[in-house]
Formats: sequence, C-alpha cells, structure tokens
Amino acid sequence: MSDQHIVSSFDRDLETIQAHIMKMGGMVERAISDAACSLETSDEELAEAVRNRDKAIDALEEQINEEAARVLALRAPAARDLRLILTVIKISASLERIGDYAKNMAKRTSVLSQMTTVSGSLAGLRRMAREVETMLKDVLDAYIHRDLELAQEVIRRDQDVDQMYNAIFREFLTFMMEDPRNITPCMHLHFIAKNTERMGDLVTAIAEQVIYLVSGALPDDPRPKGDATSVDASLAPEPGT
Amino acid sequence: MSDQHIVSSFDRDLETIQAHIMKMGGMVERAISDAACSLETSDEELAEAVRNRDKAIDALEEQINEEAARVLALRAPAARDLRLILTVIKISASLERIGDYAKNMAKRTSVLSQMTTVSGSLAGLRRMAREVETMLKDVLDAYIHRDLELAQEVIRRDQDVDQMYNAIFREFLTFMMEDPRNITPCMHLHFIAKNTERMGDLVTAIAEQVIYLVSGALPDDPRPKGDATSVDASLAPEPGT
Repeated sequence: MSDQHIVSSFDRDLETIQAHIMKMGGMVERAISDAACSLETSDEELAEAVRNRDKAIDALEEQINEEAARVLALRAPAARDLRLILTVIKISASLERIGDYAKNMAKRTSVLSQMTTVSGSLAGLRRMAREVETMLKDVLDAYIHRDLELAQEVIRRDQDVDQMYNAIFREFLTFMMEDPRNITPCMHLHFIAKNTERMGDLVTAIAEQVIYLVSGALPDDPRPKGDATSVDASLAPEPGT
Repeated sequence: MSDQHIVSSFDRDLETIQAHIMKMGGMVERAISDAACSLETSDEELAEAVRNRDKAIDALEEQINEEAARVLALRAPAARDLRLILTVIKISASLERIGDYAKNMAKRTSVLSQMTTVSGSLAGLRRMAREVETMLKDVLDAYIHRDLELAQEVIRRDQDVDQMYNAIFREFLTFMMEDPRNITPCMHLHFIAKNTERMGDLVTAIAEQVIYLVSGALPDDPRPKGDATSVDASLAPEPGT
C-alpha cells in the first residue's frame, strides 16, 4: 500500500464524518423549523413527527462518535486532523442537544394545543426560533468553508437572541399577572423561550469550535451572556411595586 | 528509552488527567452544595463566591481538553486507553455544564433575596439539589473505581429527581395561582428546579460514560426521562377547570 493510498483513504474517512455532521445539522435545522411551525399552527401531527425524528438525530450522533473513535484508533491523526476529529465530537454533541430542545418544543405543542391561547405570545417565539435556525445554518456553512469571520458573526448574533428572550420573559410575566388563566400556558411558552435561548448558546458553542478548528485556539473573549433575567431583578418587577 | 519507560510515562499522563477530572468533580459538587445553601439562607456573599469560582471550573475543563488532545497526538492510544480519553472529554463537558447550572442557581439567589419569599417553597428544591449532589459524588466514585453497578444505580436514581421536579412544578403553579405576587419569585424558583433536574440528567450522562468506559458500549435502554410536565397536560391544570 503506498503512502498516497493511505492518505486518500484517511481523507475519505474525514470527509465521511464531515458529511455526517452536515447531514445531522440539516436534520436539526429542520427539527427547529418544524417544531416552531407545529407550535404556531397547533399541528400535533407535525409535532409528533419532530419527536419521532429525534431518534435518528441521536443515532447519527452515536455513529459520528464511533467513526471518530475509529479514526483516532486506526489513523492516530495529528495536528489539524486531530483537531478536526475533536471538533466533530463536540459539534455533534451540541447538535444532539439542540435536537433535544426542538423535541421538547414539539412536546409542549401538544400540551399547549389543549389550553387557552395567549394571544400575541407566539410571534416573539417564532422570531426567536427563526433567528436560531438561521444562525445554525450559517454556522454549518462556516464549518464547511472554515470561515472564521462568519463564525464570529454568529457569536455576535447570539446577543440578539438573548435580547429577544429577555423581552419575552417580561411579556410573559405581564400576561401571567393580568390573568391567572394565563399562568399555565405561559409557563410552557416560557420554557420554550428559554430552550430556544439555550439553542442559541449551543450554536455559539459550535461557532467556537469552528474558530478552534480554523485558528487552533478557542476565542479569547468570554462568550457574551445575555440572559439578564437571572441577574437583574428590575427585569422581573413584582406586581404592585 | 525503554518500552517500560514509555508505558509508565503514558500511565502517568492518564493518571494526571483523571486526577483533574476528580478535582473538577469536587469543585462542581461544592458549587451545587454552596449554591443550594446560598439560596436557602439568602447568603449573597456565598452566592457570589459560587459565581466567581465557576471560572476555575471552566479553566479546568479547558486544561483537561488540552491534556486529552496532547495525549491523543503524542501517544495515539488504542482500545481501552482511547476510550478513557474519549470519556474524559465527555465527562468534563458534562461537569462544566453542571457547574454552569450551579452558577445560575447562585445568580438567582441575589435576585430572590430582593423578593418576597414563597414560604415552604425551598424545602423541595433543597432536597432535589442534595440528591443531585449525592448522585454526582457516587458517579465520580463509580468512575474512579470502574464500578458498573454503581453507575447503573445512579441512572435509576435520576428518576427520583425527575419525580421531585414534577411535584415542585405543580406546587409552584399552585402558589402562582393563589397570589400574583408569587409569580415572579416562583418563575425564578422554577428555573432553579428545572436546572437542578437538568443537572440530574447530566450526572446520568456521566454514568453512561462510565458504563461505556467499563463495558465498551453505551447502555442499551434509552435513559428514562421523567419530566412529565412537557407531555402531560394534567400535571399542569388550568385554574378553574
């Protein structure tokens, strides 16, 4: 076997793994989009489809992990190739978790469709989900094209998602205080908002892995954290004060 | 350099990495315990200490990742040693996330100490946090002793945590419906409960890695998921119905 042969077969392994990452990314994008759509239109069938498809996402993560372990064992890659394998393990884990959040969103669709709708509450959630979906699409592009700038832009855009979340948090508190019948549906909507905000954090984590892959170092600046609701009591005013 | 020498130096590398995992685990255990305590006693100083110490947990995760990458690059481990390195990467990521949740709990302490207390609401949270802390302690023991049975027991105990969460979810809904002044504090307490439930899931994920490390395969049975609030509308009754 010539060296040339070994190298190409190794490259083929890496390409296969990356193709699986892109496939997984596409499935997760679709899960977010369908979960948000099912929520908006109270489409329980679509919600069930999202929940069922999550198994395939989980299976793909496991497959990627096995492929990565096999490449590490058989090829003992160094430097950039090793970095690629390490990022693949991290990115697939982040994608799996985003998929879980989308599944959770879809689960709550069924619960919410049995409840009073809180009018106007879904628009903000939809915008937020759409932004996260676009960020995921862009970070996968950044990954495949090794585009450092696009990865950095995705990290910046996560701050918009955090701001959207903070606005929704306040909006839902107001709804709940206005009418106790809104409490239960708003709790569920709220979890959806929080989970969408977390999806944004996970997309950011993927962007950081892209930066690590391209530059060899994780970004210096600590990731901006925009969920102000946990630190700023003024965002969560008590009624009557 | 003799083979013997190489082997022992490799073993030393692995031991160092594992010692760092145990150190990180201890720091995270303490973060959970202190965050829960700061919440219960409205101890803002302790809460701030938890928040500040999270940086050291994050730094340790990064260090473990670097050590793992170095071992992969220099030693090209195979079979069981490779599995050890892969679990180290996954376990440190789970620990880092548990630490983040503890930090978030501590952040909410400061917010909550400025609000009306919802009497009786903290007992359930404290029990839940204590159970997760014990599970974490046990899973780290299972890791260091390669104890398959203990790891499996930890996975089973996560169902108790999920049940505690479901009970707390219902309790807080009742509080909020009884008095709108409870809404804001209960929202925060609720997030803490949900985050504690997620910590339990992450401890379970560590237990699964221990099983993978010892047996070479991830557990067959899908992890029991006990957060019924997202699928069962009856757990979240609308007021007046």
